[in-house]
Amino acid sequence: MKLLVVGSVAYDAIETPFGKTDKILGGAGTYIALSASYAGASPDVVSVVGGDFEDKYLKMLEEHNVDVQGVEIKKDEKTFFWSGKYHNDMNSRDTLITELNSLGTFDPKVPEAYKNAEFLMLGNLSPDVQRKVIEQMPVRPKLIIMDTMNFWMDTMLDELHRTMSMVDVISINDEEARQLSGEYSLKKAARKIQAMGPKYVIIKKGEHGALLFNDDKVFFAPALPLEEVFDPTGAGDTFAGGFAGYLAAQGAVSFENMKTAIIFGSAMASFCVEKFGTERLQNLEKQEIYHRILQFVDLVKFDYQEK
Amino acid sequence: MKLLVVGSVAYDAIETPFGKTDKILGGAGTYIALSASYAGASPDVVSVVGGDFEDKYLKMLEEHNVDVQGVEIKKDEKTFFWSGKYHNDMNSRDTLITELNSLGTFDPKVPEAYKNAEFLMLGNLSPDVQRKVIEQMPVRPKLIIMDTMNFWMDTMLDELHRTMSMVDVISINDEEARQLSGEYSLKKAARKIQAMGPKYVIIKKGEHGALLFNDDKVFFAPALPLEEVFDPTGAGDTFAGGFAGYLAAQGAVSFENMKTAIIFGSAMASFCVEKFGTERLQNLEKQEIYHRILQFVDLVKFDYQEK
Repeated sequence: MKLLVVGSVAYDAIETPFGKTDKILGGAGTYIALSASYAGASPDVVSVVGGDFEDKYLKMLEEHNVDVQGVEIKKDEKTFFWSGKYHNDMNSRDTLITELNSLGTFDPKVPEAYKNAEFLMLGNLSPDVQRKVIEQMPVRPKLIIMDTMNFWMDTMLDELHRTMSMVDVISINDEEARQLSGEYSLKKAARKIQAMGPKYVIIKKGEHGALLFNDDKVFFAPALPLEEVFDPTGAGDTFAGGFAGYLAAQGAVSFENMKTAIIFGSAMASFCVEKFGTERLQNLEKQEIYHRILQFVDLVKFDYQEK
Repeated sequence: MKLLVVGSVAYDAIETPFGKTDKILGGAGTYIALSASYAGASPDVVSVVGGDFEDKYLKMLEEHNVDVQGVEIKKDEKTFFWSGKYHNDMNSRDTLITELNSLGTFDPKVPEAYKNAEFLMLGNLSPDVQRKVIEQMPVRPKLIIMDTMNFWMDTMLDELHRTMSMVDVISINDEEARQLSGEYSLKKAARKIQAMGPKYVIIKKGEHGALLFNDDKVFFAPALPLEEVFDPTGAGDTFAGGFAGYLAAQGAVSFENMKTAIIFGSAMASFCVEKFGTERLQNLEKQEIYHRILQFVDLVKFDYQEK
């Protein structure tokens, strides 16, 4: 089924203990769309870039079955630029530069050809921008997924609540879940967040995996213990994109399907961190993904029989 | 098969956001033995207490098939006493009082009747005390498991390495694994720790579960998302006791068996934190444990078929 992705398409400059990059391709929308494409989805992207955005990146996305006609090009402006430096433990980072540029005035326009999407993935953006996309859909999509972050909780909490009330799935990290709910227990936090709108709550725990809550049901997806995290940039977006893409490709929404979708997203995220930026996601083989998922199966499998 | 447990038997006074206790039963050896007993093991305990130790606690242990003839009673001394206060997030605590008392001069004596144990579980104690127990065994046990903590890494690193070189399994938490190995990646840390002696490395991650490493194999056991952690005291010991007890009761040592043993330990730990001290572990039904383990099975189960 059709998947509409809304999210930033950007330039990033990244520094990790392993090296640093010049301006490379980044942005939540980019990671989401690439990741979703490997699940068998053909995502349509709504985003904005500046006149400095290189055409080769749009072509690369098209080669991954990503439709980019919804990526507005503001010729006289520049592309959103983010620069960050990771600390030695890779779990914290300093933002060095944030230049919103064309993203600062982003007024999303959903092309007519995109308006019948059954699945809508709202990447991390201002909650009013996310809402404007939902409001442009003539028929409510079957499943609306939103990503968000603590910045919007700090600065636009009312708008965030308004958008949350319109979606089915929210994806946030553990600290954000605690901030949003005021609860330390993630089980209690998820229940409170469900009461704010989304029936499904995904809590990302980085190197500790992810939890999916729905009513009283819970599923835990581990993270694969990795030898080395080379660059964590985009891992959360890649996770969300794999999740959304898997569901859209399968076409069915159920808790059982979402479990596998979360494992798919986790596997995609485990590839993402192996190289800088989107590099690893640009050239993945289906067999590699399949074998990675089998590692997730093995990681948690055990036998138990009552004696 | 026979399981020998060495560890403190103590008094604790605990304060959490939910309340505080007077002096109650505590100690690593206590939690390990109780937990192991639910796996079907009949653990023998080597420990020391003072003249102030109440006989009813020894009786309670005996009612759980724990042999306490190896618990030395130093009539003129007092029992090891620890007092601590947990912070609101339950992940950090302040130690208020540590009175070593009889434990300060603990010279473990393994009774003749215990010396044919096939499984030896060394609770967190000074590494030279742990070694003295191993040296008293006329035939090397089939499996020696040790727990330890950062305190011994800071104060007795050489002794710790010496003891580590004599054991099969080590159980430590993630921060301790990083300290001991100098590696942030837990996969790399586990490999370095294996090179120090123990072929099997269990890395406990608290609310994030636990990892088991052996050669290039890895297993991940999730922690059950809990509504509330009432008192985390003893959770790590309960985990280790469930692990050791399960293996001893099964009598077989293999990576596959250890996986289930870790889940059993995790389930026991999830009960432990539901009430103060050992309270929850004193009255558990086999059916409750079975149902809890099924929750672990459900928590990570998902379907995946290659399309």
